Amino acid sequence: MLKIGVIGYGYWGPNIVRNFHNCSNAKVVAVSDKREEVLSKVKVLYPDISVSKDPFELIKSVNVDAVAIVTPVTTHFELAKQALENGKHIFVEKPFTASLSEANILIDLAEKTNLKIMVDHTFLFTGAVQKIKSLIDDGTIGKLYYYDSTRVNLGLFQHDINVIWDLAPHDFSIMDFLLNEKPESLVATGMDHFNHNNENLAYITLYFKSNLIAHFNVNWLSPVKIRSTLIGGEKQMIVWNDLSADEKIKVYDKSVQVENREGIYDLMFNYRVGDMYSPKINHVEALQSETQYFVKCVEQNISPINDGLAGRKVVELLTATDESIKEKGKRVFLTDS
Amino acid sequence: MLKIGVIGYGYWGPNIVRNFHNCSNAKVVAVSDKREEVLSKVKVLYPDISVSKDPFELIKSVNVDAVAIVTPVTTHFELAKQALENGKHIFVEKPFTASLSEANILIDLAEKTNLKIMVDHTFLFTGAVQKIKSLIDDGTIGKLYYYDSTRVNLGLFQHDINVIWDLAPHDFSIMDFLLNEKPESLVATGMDHFNHNNENLAYITLYFKSNLIAHFNVNWLSPVKIRSTLIGGEKQMIVWNDLSADEKIKVYDKSVQVENREGIYDLMFNYRVGDMYSPKINHVEALQSETQYFVKCVEQNISPINDGLAGRKVVELLTATDESIKEKGKRVFLTDS
Amino acid sequence: MLKIGVIGYGYWGPNIVRNFHNCSNAKVVAVSDKREEVLSKVKVLYPDISVSKDPFELIKSVNVDAVAIVTPVTTHFELAKQALENGKHIFVEKPFTASLSEANILIDLAEKTNLKIMVDHTFLFTGAVQKIKSLIDDGTIGKLYYYDSTRVNLGLFQHDINVIWDLAPHDFSIMDFLLNEKPESLVATGMDHFNHNNENLAYITLYFKSNLIAHFNVNWLSPVKIRSTLIGGEKQMIVWNDLSADEKIKVYDKSVQVENREGIYDLMFNYRVGDMYSPKINHVEALQSETQYFVKCVEQNISPINDGLAGRKVVELLTATDESIKEKGKRVFLTDS
Amino acid sequence: MLKIGVIGYGYWGPNIVRNFHNCSNAKVVAVSDKREEVLSKVKVLYPDISVSKDPFELIKSVNVDAVAIVTPVTTHFELAKQALENGKHIFVEKPFTASLSEANILIDLAEKTNLKIMVDHTFLFTGAVQKIKSLIDDGTIGKLYYYDSTRVNLGLFQHDINVIWDLAPHDFSIMDFLLNEKPESLVATGMDHFNHNNENLAYITLYFKSNLIAHFNVNWLSPVKIRSTLIGGEKQMIVWNDLSADEKIKVYDKSVQVENREGIYDLMFNYRVGDMYSPKINHVEALQSETQYFVKCVEQNISPINDGLAGRKVVELLTATDESIKEKGKRVFLTDS
Repeated sequence: MLKIGVIGYGYWGPNIVRNFHNCSNAKVVAVSDKREEVLSKVKVLYPDISVSKDPFELIKSVNVDAVAIVTPVTTHFELAKQALENGKHIFVEKPFTASLSEANILIDLAEKTNLKIMVDHTFLFTGAVQKIKSLIDDGTIGKLYYYDSTRVNLGLFQHDINVIWDLAPHDFSIMDFLLNEKPESLVATGMDHFNHNNENLAYITLYFKSNLIAHFNVNWLSPVKIRSTLIGGEKQMIVWNDLSADEKIKVYDKSVQVENREGIYDLMFNYRVGDMYSPKINHVEALQSETQYFVKCVEQNISPINDGLAGRKVVELLTATDESIKEKGKRVFLTDS
Repeated sequence: MLKIGVIGYGYWGPNIVRNFHNCSNAKVVAVSDKREEVLSKVKVLYPDISVSKDPFELIKSVNVDAVAIVTPVTTHFELAKQALENGKHIFVEKPFTASLSEANILIDLAEKTNLKIMVDHTFLFTGAVQKIKSLIDDGTIGKLYYYDSTRVNLGLFQHDINVIWDLAPHDFSIMDFLLNEKPESLVATGMDHFNHNNENLAYITLYFKSNLIAHFNVNWLSPVKIRSTLIGGEKQMIVWNDLSADEKIKVYDKSVQVENREGIYDLMFNYRVGDMYSPKINHVEALQSETQYFVKCVEQNISPINDGLAGRKVVELLTATDESIKEKGKRVFLTDS
Repeated sequence: MLKIGVIGYGYWGPNIVRNFHNCSNAKVVAVSDKREEVLSKVKVLYPDISVSKDPFELIKSVNVDAVAIVTPVTTHFELAKQALENGKHIFVEKPFTASLSEANILIDLAEKTNLKIMVDHTFLFTGAVQKIKSLIDDGTIGKLYYYDSTRVNLGLFQHDINVIWDLAPHDFSIMDFLLNEKPESLVATGMDHFNHNNENLAYITLYFKSNLIAHFNVNWLSPVKIRSTLIGGEKQMIVWNDLSADEKIKVYDKSVQVENREGIYDLMFNYRVGDMYSPKINHVEALQSETQYFVKCVEQNISPINDGLAGRKVVELLTATDESIKEKGKRVFLTDS
Repeated sequence: MLKIGVIGYGYWGPNIVRNFHNCSNAKVVAVSDKREEVLSKVKVLYPDISVSKDPFELIKSVNVDAVAIVTPVTTHFELAKQALENGKHIFVEKPFTASLSEANILIDLAEKTNLKIMVDHTFLFTGAVQKIKSLIDDGTIGKLYYYDSTRVNLGLFQHDINVIWDLAPHDFSIMDFLLNEKPESLVATGMDHFNHNNENLAYITLYFKSNLIAHFNVNWLSPVKIRSTLIGGEKQMIVWNDLSADEKIKVYDKSVQVENREGIYDLMFNYRVGDMYSPKINHVEALQSETQYFVKCVEQNISPINDGLAGRKVVELLTATDESIKEKGKRVFLTDS
């Protein structure tokens, strides 16, 4: 039985507590939050869970095996570091850390202490992403040409982070999971319309070594909510509309093939336009699968797909995006490719 | 009665001939095309129109007052120049020319000879664009924050031009018409997946002197057709879906306003979320309005909104896009801002 | 403080308990359900609520002021009658009763004992229905021509009731609330495809004294879920799509007006086709408003809009529909018109 | 070479002329219309076609082999009868005739004279209907449970016919073509809101000998245009949205199966919910296929699928609908079942 302490019980924390509590072989034993009234709520819902305003109480408790850190990104490093130093596995909200160097320190520390890091890239555990992964990996889509994502809505402006750190971690972690290739460099543009030192919309292009290209459109200022991704492959193409209730994924039997006969003036473009189908998607709550997977990774000493390295990749893309935007689309090379 | 000669009777030419022929105060008197069988078709449909394989016959004819050039972009310059030199007004298919210098020469020539140039930016004459223009100009939308356009489909690859020269002229001409501000610089990324020396998808960001920003997503390799533009303003926001039969334009009474009290840590974001409405759109064929407008501009000596300068702006954006893509997102400054 | 006992803690019961518990001036003091394991769940979530397998314990308790009956329709009458006889106000799940005579007895009993009956027609308390009501009542829509509802999906077949008693109570109660006119007769058709003595699809037409007409399409065997209602009026028309996240209601400035000049061969049909708008809808949970309204009706001795008579009208329409279908579309007159 | 005369050059006539003219082995030799200005238009477009205000000139001409009758339904009988008596094959606009007896006379006459009748049920020749037909006939859908069609829009009110005779011929002819079973009786309701002696909306249920049921919703007073048909089968279900550009047909791998173990209280309902797919649809113009098929039927002495009997079935359903509506949903038995 894995005993879990959860730090932070704001918007997302209650879901984390509920799901870990429902895991087989795990239970939440402690919750920490700065706000007294929040702790009272926990006490009503879960009388057996101990609560505390001081997170370090929980981090140092011998009764805790793993710590879930569900707090703003700027606080992740200190909490995670102390947890690892106190021998706890950690489950950290995305984005993993506020900088690459923080991520590196935590990864090293976990390796030395033989503890697990899991970053909460929840989307990887949705039926939709799992289905797309299998369509790519079993060769249905063929060689990938592009990955084009739009994630926009009228969003809550945040004081401490920009739209990129708010929305793009979803897309970067999904893309990193789906594509079997790493981006090489990045070009990003964006704008801060309200002089609050944080972009509220951004456009990001990722170049790869091959001719694969990825693009991300994130925007806090859209009148409509869009969660849409196009994936173009040599054989088939995917449209993933995450807001559709029944047809989240559509697979199009469409493609263009080129015969290069004698130089570019003798190219033959062959179009294929066939059926579309929308596969049935598994509807299990993603966070339930993910928390159960965390327990399994700890128990069986498995490296999670969403480990510290996966978290670090996302952080690298976020920081590179910030850098590129500051210099109006400067190409930034990625060390982690 | 304005007598018009039309050069090029391929995909678009028949529409040009039909519409000019239906204009009051104008008629098509001559059509030229290289293909014999095409000319026979014209002869059957319009027995009174003279046809010829040699465009210069028509250009030099004393019976022709204006020449419509509906041929591939690389041929525009020579035909247009000769037409102007022979005292003909010109109506030129978009994009205006293959280079800025060509555009400059034609503009100068037209000015000296006191002849009209109209570039066929048909979209400016659609009910949808006219309605958006009025919503912007009458202050409904307020100060503009962003213009974000997506124009993608499984497109016919062309040997001589890339997706940018094929699709972006629509968006650049519409944007130029709608926004009362000129872009200052541009960052573009893209990819040629088939080694045919022409990009088949591209992402373009335009920076302005103010904090307005524009973005364009054009793609020949999308399994679905999308024609969608988001326009964000201080007061209201627009979604224009040109594929919708009945609700092309939706105006959202949504906005974010910021009170800057004391530094960025004391910003107050006020959200307004109200009704949406979809105004009735005029359904007159755009090309009919445009051709009639050409006749009027010639008759009354009016400078068209889509004159040579407007055409030149589009060409400058296209060439700057090509340049930026070649250098992987290099920022290119626009002289014409 | 109104003390409420809830009978039945199956699919809908937990929502009833939660909402009554959150009402100001009310609290749930007792829950009854036949299933031991369900009562344990209640005990964990609400340690202060007393539980019992015997509903009559709760019905007879001096500690209970009002009883919510959230059980299958066949059990409503006996439970409701006993509750009223024991001096309790009642809140009854829809449909109110299994027959008209049951409804009549309960209504009489409540009147004599001066107790309130509320039937859980939850939809009346949604933002969408409230908005449509105001559009009709303030004259925006004008004289009503038709009400046409489609409520279909792949539904759970039930052994004891047909699709009409499952889905149509929603539509009948909404229609009764919205229209300021009562239906006079009814024609219904339908089919039982699985020989289980219960129709799984049905089509119902309601005639009114005026030329208003209503139609309902309910179906348990549809591959897609549809919740759509068209309301045609002399001045404007409404499309209500309850599955739309952001545009549940669209109001069309469309209408047809007829000038009758000299007999039917000289009719002039004038069409008006203007803007569409989608009003902002209030998103408060309907059941929260409804339960709070129940408390208010009891406290202030108000007759609810969804009282026993409203419940009886729905039951009359359901039984008349059954009768008409059995005789393949026989016209059935309604006594309650 | 089949020589065709066309009577009526209003809304639909130009399409008939164009398509017959483009058929291999056929050409239009004569057009008749009452309006002088219309005939001038024909003359401009088709200088070789002879025109006349008198339809009987064309009907009696030895130069004409077949007559296409594209006039209002009340005139069909006289023109068709004369054409058959003069030895011409006929192609008649839908609905075939204004009454069953007219249809019977024409069918008998054609049989005696060994001439072909084709009724213009154009929809049968669309890619969508052809695809649905093959999905039903090859067993993909399984035994059919229901056919549910909605065809509504803000329609042009006509003086001489009601919405049923305007819109339902499409649906009745499609249904008759698709279903391999004939309806046995019919129940219809509807309303004339403008006192012009013609219903502007109607709801029609068709009963069959098996437990198949069909329903049709036709409405001239809808603010939105809907062209949607649901077809439920034992194995799979179809949604046909004729307004969708790219996904007209969706096939759902959904079904309900019932195991009847011991009486209705021991029914087991098994649900299957799998993938959806949208087959590629052939985009050839339906009228082109139909006119070519007419030429083939005449040349090779084939009975068309849309012959006089098919036309008669539609007329019988239309007249039965009128009869049922007049008596507020009276069940009308069909002789032609």
